[in-house]
Amino acid sequence: MKKYCFAADIGGTTVKLGLFDAEGNVLDKWEIKSHTENEGAAILPDTAEAILKKIEERKLNTEEIAGIGVGVPGPVSIDGIVPHTANLGWGYKEVTKELSERTGLLCKAANDANVAALGEMWVGGAKGHKDVLLLTLGTGVGGGIIVDGKILTGAHGAGGEIGHIHVEDHIEEHCGCGNQGCLEQFASATGIARLAREALAESDEPSLLREGEATAKDVFDALKKGDALAKGVAERFAKYLGTGIAVMTAILDPEVIVIGGGVSKAGEILLDYIREYYKPYAYKSAKDTEFALAKLGNDAGIYGCAKLVLD
Amino acid sequence: MKKYCFAADIGGTTVKLGLFDAEGNVLDKWEIKSHTENEGAAILPDTAEAILKKIEERKLNTEEIAGIGVGVPGPVSIDGIVPHTANLGWGYKEVTKELSERTGLLCKAANDANVAALGEMWVGGAKGHKDVLLLTLGTGVGGGIIVDGKILTGAHGAGGEIGHIHVEDHIEEHCGCGNQGCLEQFASATGIARLAREALAESDEPSLLREGEATAKDVFDALKKGDALAKGVAERFAKYLGTGIAVMTAILDPEVIVIGGGVSKAGEILLDYIREYYKPYAYKSAKDTEFALAKLGNDAGIYGCAKLVLD
Repeated sequence: MKKYCFAADIGGTTVKLGLFDAEGNVLDKWEIKSHTENEGAAILPDTAEAILKKIEERKLNTEEIAGIGVGVPGPVSIDGIVPHTANLGWGYKEVTKELSERTGLLCKAANDANVAALGEMWVGGAKGHKDVLLLTLGTGVGGGIIVDGKILTGAHGAGGEIGHIHVEDHIEEHCGCGNQGCLEQFASATGIARLAREALAESDEPSLLREGEATAKDVFDALKKGDALAKGVAERFAKYLGTGIAVMTAILDPEVIVIGGGVSKAGEILLDYIREYYKPYAYKSAKDTEFALAKLGNDAGIYGCAKLVLD
Repeated sequence: MKKYCFAADIGGTTVKLGLFDAEGNVLDKWEIKSHTENEGAAILPDTAEAILKKIEERKLNTEEIAGIGVGVPGPVSIDGIVPHTANLGWGYKEVTKELSERTGLLCKAANDANVAALGEMWVGGAKGHKDVLLLTLGTGVGGGIIVDGKILTGAHGAGGEIGHIHVEDHIEEHCGCGNQGCLEQFASATGIARLAREALAESDEPSLLREGEATAKDVFDALKKGDALAKGVAERFAKYLGTGIAVMTAILDPEVIVIGGGVSKAGEILLDYIREYYKPYAYKSAKDTEFALAKLGNDAGIYGCAKLVLD
C-alpha cells in the first residue's frame, strides 16, 4: 500500500508542488520558480531536485511513494509526451520519462486544465461525480473533461480544448490559437473586457464602467450594483458561454458543470447569467444539469496531479 | 472462454438480430418485426424468444455464450435503463434486467448510435482506432463517441447527441427535440432538402433540382454534374456541418471522424465539402484529423452490440 504521492503542477511562472497522503490530504505545499529560459531545460531537473530534497528532509521511504503526478500547460499524450509548450519554452519533451529517470519514481502527466478537473472531482466542486465538465475562465478559457472518473485526453492530448470551439462568424480579431471566433475571445476575462470596451464605445450611456479600466471584475462588480451597461455586457458574455456549454453537454452529457478561474470569483450571479442562456439551447436530457463553482482555486492542479498518480 | 454472442439492434420497424463468434464474424443474421403497439410490450419478449429459438436450433451450449448486446433508439443509462423511447412506445424500461430474466443470459445495452460507433471501430471505417467520433446523417443526425475504446454514455445516457448542438440563431422552425437551430435541422437528409427548397425559392436560377423532389440525394447527384444551385446548397450544408464537427473535435480530439447514414452514400465528394469548412474552424491539433466513410451500413448496430457484450 502506497502512503504518499507528489504533485507537480508546472506553470509558466512557478511549479506548484505538493506532498499528499492517499486520502487526498495535503501534507506539504510549496513552489519553485519555472526557469523558462534556455528552452525551459532546467524545469524538470529543478522539479526533480525539489522532490528529492523533500523526500530526504522528511525521511520518506520511497517504497511508500506512489509516484509523481505532473500537470503541463499544453497538450500531453497518454504516454506523457509533450509535443510543444509555448509558455515553458519546451519543444518535444518526454516529460514522464525524464522525470522518472531523475527521481526513480513512477510519473504520470496530463494537461493542466485536465488535472484541475480531476482535482475538482476528487475533493472540490464536483466531489461525488464521475462525469465532469470543468471550464476555467481566466486570461483564456481552459477546460477539462472527466468521463467515468478518467481524464478525456484525446488523440493528440488536446481533449477539452473548449476555449477554441467556434461561436462567432463575425469577428476581425484572431484568437491566440490562430482561428477567429473562438469562445475564448468572448468568455475569458480578456474577452469580457473587450465586450465592455465595445459596449462603452457604442453608446454614451452612463456607466460605472466608464470610471475605471472596465475589467471583467469591474463588469461583475458594476452588475451587482445594477449598472445597465454592465448588464448588457454580461448578457452578451452569457449568451456565448451558455450556448457554448449547451453544445458541450449535448456532446458529453456530464453530471455537473464546474466553473472556475478568475472570472468565477463573481460567484453565484455568474452562474445565474450562464444558466439563463444555457437552458434554451441545451438538449432536453441536459437542461437541468447541475452548475457549480470550482472550490480549489489555484490548488486544483496539485490535487488533480495527486489523484492522477494515485489512480 | 466464450465462443459466441448475440446482438439485438432494436429499431422502430424491426429488431435486427445477429449471432457472432468472438472474432467478430457473423454466423447468422436475421430480423423480426418490432411490435410497437401496446407501448411496445412485446418487443423484449419477442427478442428473447427469437434468441432462445436460435440457441435451440443451432444446439448452442449456453455456457459458451458471452451474452446479448442490445442497441436501443434512445437514451440508455450505464445500468441498461431506458427512461423513455418515442419510437418504440416504451416508457421507463429496465431493458437488460428484463431481457436477462427472459433468456438467462448476461445483457448489456447502449444507445443505437453509440453501438454503431463501436461497430465501426471494431470492424468498420474506424478499425484500428480507439478514439472515434461517428456522425450518422440520415433522417436525423445521430452520433456516437468512443473514448479509449469505450462508449461515452453520459450521465443521462445522452452522450453523443451531436445532432442537437446549437448552430444557428436565426430559424423559425423547431427541431424534433423542441429546440431551434440544431445541427440536425441543417445537416440531416431532411435538413439538406429544406436548404434546397429554400435555395430554389430564393432565385430563378436554372437547376437540375427543379426537375424532381430535390432530396438530399438529388442535391449530391446534381452537384456531381456541376449544378451551380446544388453547389450552393452543399456549401451551406457543409458550413454548418464542418463548423459543427470542428466544435466536436476541439472538445473530444478523436483520432478519426466517421461519417455514416444515408447521406454518406454521396461518397468522397461529401467528405471533400465537409473538410473545406472543417479545417479553418478546427483547433490546431485537430486540423488534420482523418475523415472516413462508415463501412458497415445498417449492420453497424449489430456489430457494435456484439462488441459491447464481448468487451
